[in-house]
Amino acid sequence: MSDVRIDDLPVRDELRGKSPYGAPQLDVPVRLNTNENPYPLPEPLVERIAERVREAARHLNRYPDRDAVELRTGLAEYLTKTAGHPVGLENVWAANGSNEVIQQLLQTFGGPGRTAIGFEPSYSMHALIARGTGTGWISGPRRDDFSIDLAAAEEAIAEHRPDVVFVTTPNNPTGNAVPPETVLALYEAAQAAKPSMVVVDEAYVEFSHGDSLLPLLEGRPHLVVSRTMSKAFGAAGLRLGYLAAHPAVVDAVQLVRLPYHLSAITQATALAALEHTGTLLKYVEQLKAERDRLVAELRALDYEVTESDANFVQFGRFADSQAAWRRILDRGVLVRDNGVPGWLRVTAGTPAENDAFLDAVREIKKEQSA
Amino acid sequence: MSDVRIDDLPVRDELRGKSPYGAPQLDVPVRLNTNENPYPLPEPLVERIAERVREAARHLNRYPDRDAVELRTGLAEYLTKTAGHPVGLENVWAANGSNEVIQQLLQTFGGPGRTAIGFEPSYSMHALIARGTGTGWISGPRRDDFSIDLAAAEEAIAEHRPDVVFVTTPNNPTGNAVPPETVLALYEAAQAAKPSMVVVDEAYVEFSHGDSLLPLLEGRPHLVVSRTMSKAFGAAGLRLGYLAAHPAVVDAVQLVRLPYHLSAITQATALAALEHTGTLLKYVEQLKAERDRLVAELRALDYEVTESDANFVQFGRFADSQAAWRRILDRGVLVRDNGVPGWLRVTAGTPAENDAFLDAVREIKKEQSA
Repeated sequence: MSDVRIDDLPVRDELRGKSPYGAPQLDVPVRLNTNENPYPLPEPLVERIAERVREAARHLNRYPDRDAVELRTGLAEYLTKTAGHPVGLENVWAANGSNEVIQQLLQTFGGPGRTAIGFEPSYSMHALIARGTGTGWISGPRRDDFSIDLAAAEEAIAEHRPDVVFVTTPNNPTGNAVPPETVLALYEAAQAAKPSMVVVDEAYVEFSHGDSLLPLLEGRPHLVVSRTMSKAFGAAGLRLGYLAAHPAVVDAVQLVRLPYHLSAITQATALAALEHTGTLLKYVEQLKAERDRLVAELRALDYEVTESDANFVQFGRFADSQAAWRRILDRGVLVRDNGVPGWLRVTAGTPAENDAFLDAVREIKKEQSA
Repeated sequence: MSDVRIDDLPVRDELRGKSPYGAPQLDVPVRLNTNENPYPLPEPLVERIAERVREAARHLNRYPDRDAVELRTGLAEYLTKTAGHPVGLENVWAANGSNEVIQQLLQTFGGPGRTAIGFEPSYSMHALIARGTGTGWISGPRRDDFSIDLAAAEEAIAEHRPDVVFVTTPNNPTGNAVPPETVLALYEAAQAAKPSMVVVDEAYVEFSHGDSLLPLLEGRPHLVVSRTMSKAFGAAGLRLGYLAAHPAVVDAVQLVRLPYHLSAITQATALAALEHTGTLLKYVEQLKAERDRLVAELRALDYEVTESDANFVQFGRFADSQAAWRRILDRGVLVRDNGVPGWLRVTAGTPAENDAFLDAVREIKKEQSA
């Protein structure tokens, strides 16, 4: 039996020869490769999680609240408070990571015989989840500076008439934000081509210099804003993503969500984290300052740096980005080679981690000019 | 905007006019409708969960172990110990509930242009997840006594050549187990028609009079056994499903699984539960005795009862099962009207809950014969 491999099984044709997604996890002193928040949760929050989970565990023999009402209410309050736009329980849906949110959206509005577009390079899971849900994928264009060329994007939408349009802002892996007027124009273009859903992926928005696009939801039932607790809440291990949209969108995704998809333990942990929003957002302010420092110091070293509104910075250019990645790794710092030719991505870590990274790239520069 | 409804959105055609799956949750003293384990987790396990979750929460800013190695090792040990068949880490995969396991299997081996068959009535999520993944669904036959008619089943497989064959044993909602020789014959038929995957859904197997079919995995790389911690482990709120199969199957589902799908909190909680397997399996023995009592007492009341190897019992027949469901509800006991005409399903609860249920159906019998 040991000689049976994936391709010997009756897997779908489009999966043959593929490998699973995932950043390599290497055992390195400084890991700045997956855009994790470097600050562990504060101990009072850890205790509160243990407390809320203990309470939830006493009822664990029962199915969880299928509609996650208390959690969605808490998320709605957080969005209302931070985005200055009223969001209610009926506007919010939550799932196991924003990946599952996106999967549910594509199962509802994409799928076989339908297409989705993203402007690449962007979050590569959009294309992968499209493949996983049988949705055709269209790779839309970006300018060389990684901004969205509105005319070219509108043309792509008019030509392909996609059912779902992804706009990631701030964009991953490049870091730059998309101006609200561009998002609005893309929404109009998508509606003109076909009534399409526009999904604004705001996974990194808390780190932005600008504001959330949540207020754009008003009067736009085909707009969805997706969010996560992985980054700003420092809870990548929790897998809690959510969306805000018109209540009809929230109703619609419930047609495809797996029943009881969100465990009682996840709901309890997320609710505990929401109680500590104030502290967690202070860490975000520190990370924004560190991100700005990375941008400034990399530029001082004569690297090219893409404007960043996220908790990471894209820098280059390298004749051979894989070799550059390796040289930084040799100095004990793991950054991400995201497959954007000539560029690498570094996550803003603690001040000490960022110093270690800056030392590494400074040495590399020196070697090169020596 | 308040007048926008699901069908005004560009949802997929097959979702139009549909409602979300889910048992109605009514506020009733005795709820025996969703096959939950009535016994709360023992307090030492609750404490252990809080302890393990506290530890996991200290690293929650980091992504969880994507491959859930410690958890899968623990599940493999549990299977090896209880099924008397050696199962290793490389044979086991885990996800957010067996629903997600099934979804990953259908994304890998089903999907657009492919079909899956189940022998109905059976677990209705198989068909719903097929729909959600774009997999065509074939409703295979059962006999009037809810056993699988092997000749008819083989004929259906030869005719439709499905890519995935579901066999639920013990079957839900009917409760009866499928004999191992029938499963073997279905596996052979499925291989003869086309190299198909056969998924044996053993969600309720710990309650069975017979043994798990895990030993059948030997030499059968197209066989998958799916399991859950919702029932025997009394952890419906945890959402932890898993499968055992050839290592190539475990590799294959990783092509479609969302990265980091299983939270650090879920992994920690499931690991704590595995430490208390002995205690939890004692509750299972109590529930088996109560299940057998329900069967005997319902038969003594002249109800028809389907043989049960699960933690629930199907009983009938009713000229109008919905009216019967309502009459039982009026007496404070919620059972399940699963849509099998003439039959209802009751979950084995605590002795007191089962007494309340038996009192209710006894009264109804009396009224009818009065």
